[in-house]
Amino acid sequence: MSSVRERISLLRARMKERGVDATLVVTDDFHSSEYVSPYFQCRSYLSGFDGSAGTLLVMQEKAALWTDGRYFLQAEEQLRDTGIDLMKMGQPEVPTLEDYLSKELTDGQVLGFDGRTVSTHLFRKLRKKCKPGVTFSMEYDPAGEVWEDRPKRIHEPVFELELNYAGRSRAEKIGKIRRILQKDGADCLVLSSLDDIAWLLNLRGQDVQYNPVFLSYLILKQEEILLYVDPEAVPEEIKTSLERENILLREYDLFFSELPDEIRGQTVVFDPDKSSAMIAQKLEAASSLKEKRNPTELMKAVKNETELKNLRLAHQKDAAAMIRFLHWLEGAVGKEPVTEISASDKLEEFRSRGSHYYGQSFAPIAGFKEHGAIIHYEATEETDKALEKESFLLLDTGGQYLEGTTDITRTIPLGPLDNDQKIRYTLVLKGNLGLADVRFPAGTNGIQLDCLARMALWEHGFDYNHGTGHGVGCFLNVHEGPQSIRNRLPEKKSDAVELKPGMVLSDEPGLYLPGEYGIRLENMMAVTDDQKTEFGEFLRFETLTLVPFDPAAIEWSLLTEREKEVLNAYHDRILREIGPLLPEEDLLWLKNKLRKD
Amino acid sequence: MSSVRERISLLRARMKERGVDATLVVTDDFHSSEYVSPYFQCRSYLSGFDGSAGTLLVMQEKAALWTDGRYFLQAEEQLRDTGIDLMKMGQPEVPTLEDYLSKELTDGQVLGFDGRTVSTHLFRKLRKKCKPGVTFSMEYDPAGEVWEDRPKRIHEPVFELELNYAGRSRAEKIGKIRRILQKDGADCLVLSSLDDIAWLLNLRGQDVQYNPVFLSYLILKQEEILLYVDPEAVPEEIKTSLERENILLREYDLFFSELPDEIRGQTVVFDPDKSSAMIAQKLEAASSLKEKRNPTELMKAVKNETELKNLRLAHQKDAAAMIRFLHWLEGAVGKEPVTEISASDKLEEFRSRGSHYYGQSFAPIAGFKEHGAIIHYEATEETDKALEKESFLLLDTGGQYLEGTTDITRTIPLGPLDNDQKIRYTLVLKGNLGLADVRFPAGTNGIQLDCLARMALWEHGFDYNHGTGHGVGCFLNVHEGPQSIRNRLPEKKSDAVELKPGMVLSDEPGLYLPGEYGIRLENMMAVTDDQKTEFGEFLRFETLTLVPFDPAAIEWSLLTEREKEVLNAYHDRILREIGPLLPEEDLLWLKNKLRKD
Repeated sequence: MSSVRERISLLRARMKERGVDATLVVTDDFHSSEYVSPYFQCRSYLSGFDGSAGTLLVMQEKAALWTDGRYFLQAEEQLRDTGIDLMKMGQPEVPTLEDYLSKELTDGQVLGFDGRTVSTHLFRKLRKKCKPGVTFSMEYDPAGEVWEDRPKRIHEPVFELELNYAGRSRAEKIGKIRRILQKDGADCLVLSSLDDIAWLLNLRGQDVQYNPVFLSYLILKQEEILLYVDPEAVPEEIKTSLERENILLREYDLFFSELPDEIRGQTVVFDPDKSSAMIAQKLEAASSLKEKRNPTELMKAVKNETELKNLRLAHQKDAAAMIRFLHWLEGAVGKEPVTEISASDKLEEFRSRGSHYYGQSFAPIAGFKEHGAIIHYEATEETDKALEKESFLLLDTGGQYLEGTTDITRTIPLGPLDNDQKIRYTLVLKGNLGLADVRFPAGTNGIQLDCLARMALWEHGFDYNHGTGHGVGCFLNVHEGPQSIRNRLPEKKSDAVELKPGMVLSDEPGLYLPGEYGIRLENMMAVTDDQKTEFGEFLRFETLTLVPFDPAAIEWSLLTEREKEVLNAYHDRILREIGPLLPEEDLLWLKNKLRKD
Repeated sequence: MSSVRERISLLRARMKERGVDATLVVTDDFHSSEYVSPYFQCRSYLSGFDGSAGTLLVMQEKAALWTDGRYFLQAEEQLRDTGIDLMKMGQPEVPTLEDYLSKELTDGQVLGFDGRTVSTHLFRKLRKKCKPGVTFSMEYDPAGEVWEDRPKRIHEPVFELELNYAGRSRAEKIGKIRRILQKDGADCLVLSSLDDIAWLLNLRGQDVQYNPVFLSYLILKQEEILLYVDPEAVPEEIKTSLERENILLREYDLFFSELPDEIRGQTVVFDPDKSSAMIAQKLEAASSLKEKRNPTELMKAVKNETELKNLRLAHQKDAAAMIRFLHWLEGAVGKEPVTEISASDKLEEFRSRGSHYYGQSFAPIAGFKEHGAIIHYEATEETDKALEKESFLLLDTGGQYLEGTTDITRTIPLGPLDNDQKIRYTLVLKGNLGLADVRFPAGTNGIQLDCLARMALWEHGFDYNHGTGHGVGCFLNVHEGPQSIRNRLPEKKSDAVELKPGMVLSDEPGLYLPGEYGIRLENMMAVTDDQKTEFGEFLRFETLTLVPFDPAAIEWSLLTEREKEVLNAYHDRILREIGPLLPEEDLLWLKNKLRKD
């Protein structure tokens, strides 16, 4: 296998031939997927740095890689002796990529990158910052030119999500989208986000880890739909049924060459936040562009009755697995060797016993003691810690079921806790319960409710440096928009999305004490109707996750009467709804755990 | 006195002579002051409609007046037989002013208005909506041309706010602003908002009702300041002291003719939200414009230690007056004739006994029973209701003291309350206490905290259709920016201002039951430091208003233990801090009122 130095030097030779002065290699695949499959791991191949975020820049005389604080140590190690400088993002004196390029590139020089992987957002920033005489070459696959044994692109078989899971036929969804386009005076919509395509067509795949989606692009017109996909990945009967609905299959690799002709002269809706620079470039052939959020995004976010009904089933199965796991863990730690990785493997084993289980919904986070304080911790063979009968294990995991996607965090006391640990656990719990308990008028957005999850922490001088809630897909991506519950205002008012009945969100306050432990308590909730009065429509949350909070970790004197009521009602509901799904010994354990003395 | 029909017909004749096809007359004075003095009441003179909000449009064949829901009835009556159509804003089928003009005015026609009174914001909207061939004539005072017996403009004597009240010398303030301009690469700042000018120069006046400000414009340059003011209104010794600091007096009426020459070739900071269309036009002579919030606004909003110390004194005096009034009211209603107006007059009398009292800080709102449900109710001789021993009196008033400006609302039970009345009062109270009790990290803005004042109401299907908190000046305007606590996101993220220690805000949740009664409970609070931890700096509120909430109106079972503690501590503090300022009989009444049984 070639070394990083050899790869970079090969790349530089190719750059000279092509007349490219600087080459940019980002982390993304062609669809801004959250997980990047081996074929797309170009930055990792070229630099040797394999963290989940980083951007490589290669020029003839120098090379540099930008990454964030999570990866400073790892990148330092992996970049040693490669000749690539580490640019620590957010550190004083470290220029941003665009500022760096604005200085390094002179008029007449060429910046090359794969326009299929660079977001429109980043491209616009670069174009704005670089000197006006700098040109951009985006029909260029830097890794492709030097990567000998590049892994094959994955095109696994596509499968149908039946109507009793999807709740709405694709004809109905497509009809709705077409009416929205017509109302907006648009002819056509171009989709490249894989979850939007999968949702719209009621199809699923397995081309991206943890996300049940398939590699594709889609052009939706008023009369027909063009689906760019590997035709071999689509079984005959699905192909037939798609064609019957005038959804025509095209070769995935022909998308960019056909796109200009397909939309020429038309008015196209296009979401710059979800489209690559190459799409933006090809869309210049349209007669006009309407930049706006994909209409699929909001429709997908509002779950229908079938989806909600199934989601409740998915959460029941997930809760049974979690509770069985918690019982097992309590018995195992201190008696047999259990590590962060083996614990999350064990949980996966319990989950996989549930029906219609399709795997994990994201890379599990299992952080014992100080590892729990690292928000994006992912245990590796090197860091994998043995669990002992003390402190907390923070466990953030989720499952993909045909019925829906789950995401749950429990922070599990592995031994007796001290006073501070209990207080801190309870402050996080107050935030979780407080947000879940609010009623609010229609029209409210997540920014307005975020403080309910934080105020108990704030009172004690604590806070957490992440959002409180993200949208969750239905047998789709575990992170989806547009709604959220967070403390940062968006740039534009229109990006603060109103919470609507049917939206699903996480509720996950946390507290992280570096070097000690981390606490996060996460449930999923659905927005639902509360009441209609002369003051308007009011909404509330329905908690979907049904796994107890360990009473032994709670400092009960910190809870208000209302919070105690809410918590007790939650635990009673768990016994009622999950109890019957548990084996006798797990149910006994649960009852004992939740016994009120 | 001429009739409205005669005035409009005279105006139309002048319009013909001038070649103006449509004349726009807005409510504002030259400074967007909240209260408009008689000289500036052009819309009212020309239309006969004297509500506090309305815009008149006169063309040769028709005339129309736009106003909002508060004034539909009044405007209907006052516009009867004038030939002016009423345009009910917000009603379906009623076009906005700009939509109306975009249709009515054809290319080549001229829209005339007084550019000194029309905001840059409105002008930009009109220019954008009107046909491209429409021209605008803004050096035009429509009312001035037809108003025979127009009242004189008020230029009352200006007076100095001594350093022991202002806390910072004007030299210090000016120096700071100049450094901000330099940092922004600007030469010069143009101010037309009267409270910004009064604050910057430590001067006060009385040219606008309720606002202790004086008519003026100001051009701040790096070397000198030009203050456009009526020179006769400035006493000799102030004039001398200003000139010593290179603050040069110019004639108020020469501002617009001198402005272009004064700023020619310079880089000028200009706040389009606080400047008239005429200022924007004259500033075209500058070499460049930086559109941003006046730097004075944020500095004025953050009160210094002297201002805060004095503000506490102002609130003590105000509280003593309020408590004496409440005692008097309880004895008077049912025994002697008391009306909405006579009650607020009586409160004014108690206030005026305090030292350094300069009058009311805004038009008092005294609404008995169903009048309390009208959010902007202002009792007139026709509506003035006699108070009886039942239901609520909503009383929203404030005072101007040399030490500061107060703003308080209490909703006073005048007789025994029923269960619903108590519950509703208590829900509003929970909102008031909840917001006042929060601690929050530096960087938080008012949008993030607003829900704390509403969530108890929301739970019962109630809400209120106004903001929760506004900034308050220090012996200045009772409404000031830029901070606020509210449930509507601003258009731009940068308009959501972080709460900073020293900022003063109101905390005023409410509940309005049309036809029945209104409840609003308003205290003023200062943002203050809470604690500094490894998670950052935390802030909290200090309540400045020290007037009890009537225990007889409270449904105690709805309060949490924490809320009871907070309320009891508040009442104890009132007894401790205000008790000594009260005459014996009022103190006894207060003690009895706050007795815990």
